[in-house]
Amino acid sequence: MTESYSPGLEGIVAGETAVSTVETGLTYRGYTIEELGEKSNYEEVAYLVLHGELPTAAQAASFRQRLTEAAHVPPEVIDTLRSIPKSASTMDVLRSAASLLAHWEPEVNDNSHDANVRKSERLIAKMPIIVAARQRLKDGQQVIAADQGLSLPANFLWMLRGEKPSERQVKALDVSFILYAEHEFNASAFSARCVVSTLSDLHSGITAAIGALKGPLHGGANERAMEVLQEVSSPAEAEAWIRKALAEKRRIMGFGHRVYKDGDPRAVYLKTLTTAVAKETGHDDLEQTAEIIETIVRTEKKLPPNVDWPCARLYHYLGLPIDLYTPLFVVARIVGWSAHIIEQLDNNRLIRPRAIYTGLAERKWQPLAARG
Amino acid sequence: MTESYSPGLEGIVAGETAVSTVETGLTYRGYTIEELGEKSNYEEVAYLVLHGELPTAAQAASFRQRLTEAAHVPPEVIDTLRSIPKSASTMDVLRSAASLLAHWEPEVNDNSHDANVRKSERLIAKMPIIVAARQRLKDGQQVIAADQGLSLPANFLWMLRGEKPSERQVKALDVSFILYAEHEFNASAFSARCVVSTLSDLHSGITAAIGALKGPLHGGANERAMEVLQEVSSPAEAEAWIRKALAEKRRIMGFGHRVYKDGDPRAVYLKTLTTAVAKETGHDDLEQTAEIIETIVRTEKKLPPNVDWPCARLYHYLGLPIDLYTPLFVVARIVGWSAHIIEQLDNNRLIRPRAIYTGLAERKWQPLAARG
Ligand SMILES: CC(C)(COP(=O)(O)OP(=O)(O)OC[C@H]1O[C@@H](n2cnc3c(N)ncnc32)[C@H](O)[C@@H]1OP(=O)(O)O)[C@@H](O)C(=O)NCCC(=O)NCCS
Ligand SMILES: CC(C)(COP(=O)(O)OP(=O)(O)OC[C@H]1O[C@@H](n2cnc3c(N)ncnc32)[C@H](O)[C@@H]1OP(=O)(O)O)[C@@H](O)C(=O)NCCC(=O)NCCS
Repeated sequence: MTESYSPGLEGIVAGETAVSTVETGLTYRGYTIEELGEKSNYEEVAYLVLHGELPTAAQAASFRQRLTEAAHVPPEVIDTLRSIPKSASTMDVLRSAASLLAHWEPEVNDNSHDANVRKSERLIAKMPIIVAARQRLKDGQQVIAADQGLSLPANFLWMLRGEKPSERQVKALDVSFILYAEHEFNASAFSARCVVSTLSDLHSGITAAIGALKGPLHGGANERAMEVLQEVSSPAEAEAWIRKALAEKRRIMGFGHRVYKDGDPRAVYLKTLTTAVAKETGHDDLEQTAEIIETIVRTEKKLPPNVDWPCARLYHYLGLPIDLYTPLFVVARIVGWSAHIIEQLDNNRLIRPRAIYTGLAERKWQPLAARG
Repeated sequence: MTESYSPGLEGIVAGETAVSTVETGLTYRGYTIEELGEKSNYEEVAYLVLHGELPTAAQAASFRQRLTEAAHVPPEVIDTLRSIPKSASTMDVLRSAASLLAHWEPEVNDNSHDANVRKSERLIAKMPIIVAARQRLKDGQQVIAADQGLSLPANFLWMLRGEKPSERQVKALDVSFILYAEHEFNASAFSARCVVSTLSDLHSGITAAIGALKGPLHGGANERAMEVLQEVSSPAEAEAWIRKALAEKRRIMGFGHRVYKDGDPRAVYLKTLTTAVAKETGHDDLEQTAEIIETIVRTEKKLPPNVDWPCARLYHYLGLPIDLYTPLFVVARIVGWSAHIIEQLDNNRLIRPRAIYTGLAERKWQPLAARG
């Protein structure tokens, strides 16, 4: 048994998937993320990942219709959001909200493939509303209803700010959502698969995945990467700062990856867009700082950046508050998690590994008076 | 990579643990479950699993004190429980409640070993309150406050019914909690470990574990086992019923196990107690029915019963409603999940396996008009 032990299951195959692969770059259902980023849009990619094919015009229209119809949240859930202390992190609140939404889900007890696809679509529509609503409630503002005419990323910006976003902002957020939508057996998708492998339900899987994504080794890295960048006040300080951080053996958030040892294709793709948005929004300085850090981490540690490195800056240039960065990852990734949960249930076997026992050998119980 | 593929990670080592082992029977921190069932009690076992050693008299007293102090739930959480439709399953509600409790947890952002032990103890005290409160609210009754003088299992029965339970009832529930408290890398504990391996927090791990336990291949089996027993109206019908079920290739809940192929030691231990309680409470008929089914499943399918088989009947004899059986498993198992989460974080590596890709080879994106 011990022979196959690989800490963190590194390199161990834990299942089969047709959703995406990281073997030759990253493809979703056979399409490269570069081509999807260039030519597609988030809603179309959501349909693709969930249903397996790009939608025809009729399918795209009826998908849009379903998202529109689902774009509301039970008032009881909003009341609960209002009752949660403002100090709670948005990720923790999203975990609660995803779980709570199950209680008003009309098909909650139907665990069939088709019902789960419908449940996923409803969650895709509802989670951005929750993120925007929580943020506004925390800031003492009124919740803004979804605008039926807008795409999902545009609607998010509208519900957050109550202003129509520019096309450029929407496009940048849309591309980030495409890149965040799905990623093979990453820690959160695998957690979701473990949970539903007991034949549990979709909401249990999504709730678990949100909890996993929150961690700084996974989705939480985009918030931490931005916090780190803010420690560096100018490009002139960047080199000294990163050399000191490396000397102190700090883990540099936004760098390294379990699978991509030569570089994360999403990071490569997103860098061009991030730099363009930096220029348009007057953030050339921060791009320079990031470039200096990137070069040194690459040279000294052989660690290329991952998607969270350019994405953190992109969200900063879009004027988004840091504690929404990982929640936006949730909004986009619901798609991939759903596809993995549905795939797991379509061909299920309980995920139940073994452990190496490192504890004490058998010992005798002692009565209370004889202890200590 | 493919060579090490074992569906459901059967036989694959996914980590190390000192909490318990199933290698020579089942031991928690070196003590056999048989000896703990005989001589110990649930609170002592909770301390043992969480802290690694049986408590001294002073440690036991201060643990009791901490449980007492934590035995209340924020009114906002009770309000949310009240707002959840009565049709929601108790397991779904517990998943939400565990997540919500984080928002009022004073140390929520401290992920250190010691803080996580304290958080675990608070959850151990709060979850039975949630289960009882939800059940009473669903039945249109007032919530009953914890009675500081009672042990945790006794208190649960008190809060559920508003009557002092008999010693025999308390002892039976206590033993079931001991047997449910911990079980190596079972599906829910492993899910919790996956979640926190991103350096996420304890409440995220527990919330995920509740979602996993819910499934009928795991904790949900105790409710399903009882539902199945109720299909058989008398011992005279048992043989025909089980032969038909097997012929129809039905999965018989409460039988089989991923690891124990020769029998689950918890099932062996609990059977004696269950049969005794059946006699005392006038349920000999159901015991006979169960015995006939057990013999035939063992002979025909070579499948021995697991812990959920006797436990389902025990809870029935204690007069508990079926939809509380898996929630009671949660109440007991919080202990084991907490120990696994804390152990994972003490020596962490991201759990991120790989997958075999079974999807389409790379293909070219088509514009909307060209599809269909
Ligand atoms: C993503 C990540 C968890 C994958 O790591 P992994 O395969 O589990 O590898 P390990 O954590 O075991 O790290 C292996 C070695 O590389 C080092 N390393 C990995 N990522 C590092 C980083 N971002 N900064 C500094 N050192 C890093 C580790 O310290 C370790 O060094 P050691 O062998 O001297 O102890 C890791 O690269 C990381 O923590 N990155 C930062 C967080 C992040 O950006 N996450 C988002 C991923 S999309
Ligand atoms: C616990 C359990 C999931 C472990 O199973 P596993 O190691 O994943 O094994 P599989 O589900 O792959 O089953 C292996 C074979 O045994 C059969 N089997 C296993 N448990 C069975 C049961 N309870 N009733 C009937 N057949 C069963 C399967 O149908 C399968 O047969 P096949 O090879 O002809 O298809 C399984 O035994 C089960 O579903 N039991 C019932 C639920 C239960 O009581 N769970 C509580 C566990 S504590």
